Amino acid sequence: MSRSKEFFATRTVAEALAGFRPGRRTAPEPVELDDALHRVPAEAVRAPAALPGFARATVDGYAVRAADTYGASEGLPGYLQLAGSVPMGAAAEVAVAPGTAVGMPTGGVLPPGADAVVMVEYTQETMPGMIEVVRPVAPGDGLVRADEDAARGAELVPAGRPLRAQDLGMLAAAGVTTISVHARPRVTILSTGDEVVPPAQRSLRPGQVRDATTSALAALVRQSGGEPHAGGIVPDDAGKLREAMRAALGDSDLVVVSAGSSVGARDQTAAAVAGLGEPGVWCHGLALRPGKPTLLAECGGVPVLGLPGNPLSALVVFRLVGVPLVWRVGGAGVWVPSEPVTRATLERDLASAAGRLDVVQVRLCDGAASPLFGLSALLSILVAADGYLVVPEEATGLPAGTEVEVTLYR
Amino acid sequence: MSRSKEFFATRTVAEALAGFRPGRRTAPEPVELDDALHRVPAEAVRAPAALPGFARATVDGYAVRAADTYGASEGLPGYLQLAGSVPMGAAAEVAVAPGTAVGMPTGGVLPPGADAVVMVEYTQETMPGMIEVVRPVAPGDGLVRADEDAARGAELVPAGRPLRAQDLGMLAAAGVTTISVHARPRVTILSTGDEVVPPAQRSLRPGQVRDATTSALAALVRQSGGEPHAGGIVPDDAGKLREAMRAALGDSDLVVVSAGSSVGARDQTAAAVAGLGEPGVWCHGLALRPGKPTLLAECGGVPVLGLPGNPLSALVVFRLVGVPLVWRVGGAGVWVPSEPVTRATLERDLASAAGRLDVVQVRLCDGAASPLFGLSALLSILVAADGYLVVPEEATGLPAGTEVEVTLYR
Repeated sequence: MSRSKEFFATRTVAEALAGFRPGRRTAPEPVELDDALHRVPAEAVRAPAALPGFARATVDGYAVRAADTYGASEGLPGYLQLAGSVPMGAAAEVAVAPGTAVGMPTGGVLPPGADAVVMVEYTQETMPGMIEVVRPVAPGDGLVRADEDAARGAELVPAGRPLRAQDLGMLAAAGVTTISVHARPRVTILSTGDEVVPPAQRSLRPGQVRDATTSALAALVRQSGGEPHAGGIVPDDAGKLREAMRAALGDSDLVVVSAGSSVGARDQTAAAVAGLGEPGVWCHGLALRPGKPTLLAECGGVPVLGLPGNPLSALVVFRLVGVPLVWRVGGAGVWVPSEPVTRATLERDLASAAGRLDVVQVRLCDGAASPLFGLSALLSILVAADGYLVVPEEATGLPAGTEVEVTLYR
Repeated sequence: MSRSKEFFATRTVAEALAGFRPGRRTAPEPVELDDALHRVPAEAVRAPAALPGFARATVDGYAVRAADTYGASEGLPGYLQLAGSVPMGAAAEVAVAPGTAVGMPTGGVLPPGADAVVMVEYTQETMPGMIEVVRPVAPGDGLVRADEDAARGAELVPAGRPLRAQDLGMLAAAGVTTISVHARPRVTILSTGDEVVPPAQRSLRPGQVRDATTSALAALVRQSGGEPHAGGIVPDDAGKLREAMRAALGDSDLVVVSAGSSVGARDQTAAAVAGLGEPGVWCHGLALRPGKPTLLAECGGVPVLGLPGNPLSALVVFRLVGVPLVWRVGGAGVWVPSEPVTRATLERDLASAAGRLDVVQVRLCDGAASPLFGLSALLSILVAADGYLVVPEEATGLPAGTEVEVTLYR
């Protein structure tokens, strides 16, 4: 057992999320609007001009002076002279003088002189050139102001919030087609273990297994806005791991090491971190099952996440701790996107130790959550699961029938 | 008003989701494992060989014959002769004969003759070449069977469920690096309106607005596994719209038309559908606010979705009806991925008409959902929103204090 294990206490997952906060952020880079979904703006984007830019009808009807309609009713309609109409997509060519009205399509430019639009439903063209109005309007009715969607200089989208579909729509409306966003964090994934071979290797010698973790982690990195790089498979050799980590630290925003599974290999990541840069190991061990042998460190400004050796545990830890870290380094500190959740009724008792977070894989059926038990060495448990539930640190278990929140895999 | 409006009843959103089910599915295509996240397998993938492929230790310890440990305790340990050890990633070179044990790393190959692994914690090497066992094990303890993660021929991932991170891990473990998936549905987006200009147009004439809807819809299509194609901006002209739709139908798996906002333009999509192929219009009008003027049709096997003219309404409808349609055409009929949701307390009364689904944009703060009211012409409402809640068809409103489910934007 390495000495580091004695020096660094086990932390809770909540402590890790709140306390391990590397300052690294990726640099800004320009991106085209069409490629900007889920990218993280490096600064707030402001409106170059007012939107929509002109007072615009929101109903089909007639532009009027509101005062000309006061008192109008079914019994005592107001009469206005029709002075023309506004075409779509062009300026109004006629003004609205007192006692007159101008025909308006939804979206048309409000003519000079008008301050409201009467809906066509409350009018009738009783004789050519003359309309009857049966309901009064107030100034501002039936239209949006020239700067109602955004004033010039107003914030269109905030810095740090991953761009959503409607944000892209807003930027398009404002004519902003290039946005400054944080570069995707480059995440190097190192897989360790003498027994590990690449997924493409067709035939295996006895004792060899294909690297499942790198492909799965790469997918989670992508899902979190990062750019995964497979750093390769490193044998169970302290010197080689340190060399691989040194190389990875040089060109990564985050280094993830999935540990070898043998007892010595478990502590190699901590040993390798020593001497690779300050401040070094932040915690070595999480109060989490599965996922206890987790290491959080920072070497020369680059965060390092050491994961347990078996794929299921590694994925549990990466979803809880790694995903928020990738978003954070990529500039989305406050706005880490949520995962889908659903409520379900626990189908059987779950035991748990207090002071430890238990992550339990579940299958959902008709609102019931059935825990999937099995060895943490089995990926098939994760593949069979629809999601997972968490037994909180303070609980000593959950009785059957408890309403639980299940985070859904996607 | 076109005649179609009289023939086709308004439907509820639930009716549309259950009843409008075009049979179109995209063809299968091969994809590499690294690019397969969220792609939809066209057929179930089966294990080419058993996994892990050999009986494997799940703990560090000693491979034994379980019978040799029966009755062992702290007070009366069992003694076994150490016959050697198993290296990582290679076959065991020694067998376990009665009365002997072989040292095992986690993940190592179980030697012939052994049927269990005793954890190192329950052993002690009291003298060189001899271990003491203080706890009995049963056959199968401390190991996984050769086919415990998957039997040969077992289903690794099902057809039709978008691939998740752990599914890619499982495929990697099995050496499946190319997967047959449904092609991304090609979704052509047509924007209509004389007033609409492309987002990149720098200066606008009075009355012109930039096309916000296409960029936002394209992002939602991407998020749903589709490949968006901007079909361009079509003027408010029935003939031109029909031509644009005919061209789009020829090379699309789904055609989306965002309508012009003027009264005539609203019915143009329905008019254009007539004559473009059977079975034609399925519904013209949804019991939904915003989003009533929605059209669902199918022309010559290609589904057509006609959206309301203003961007906010168009996006509300597309999230409710369009997103599941894109997933469905892309082969994920049963497993449309969930959106994230959260519970919150409604901060003020909401009025609603019975028989109509109301979609209300909300901002979340400390567990409270504040409705954002405003004209449906304003994209800024959607940009300010953290998510939306739905007032069900049967409700006539929701009182302040109601616990509501908010679907979060991402």
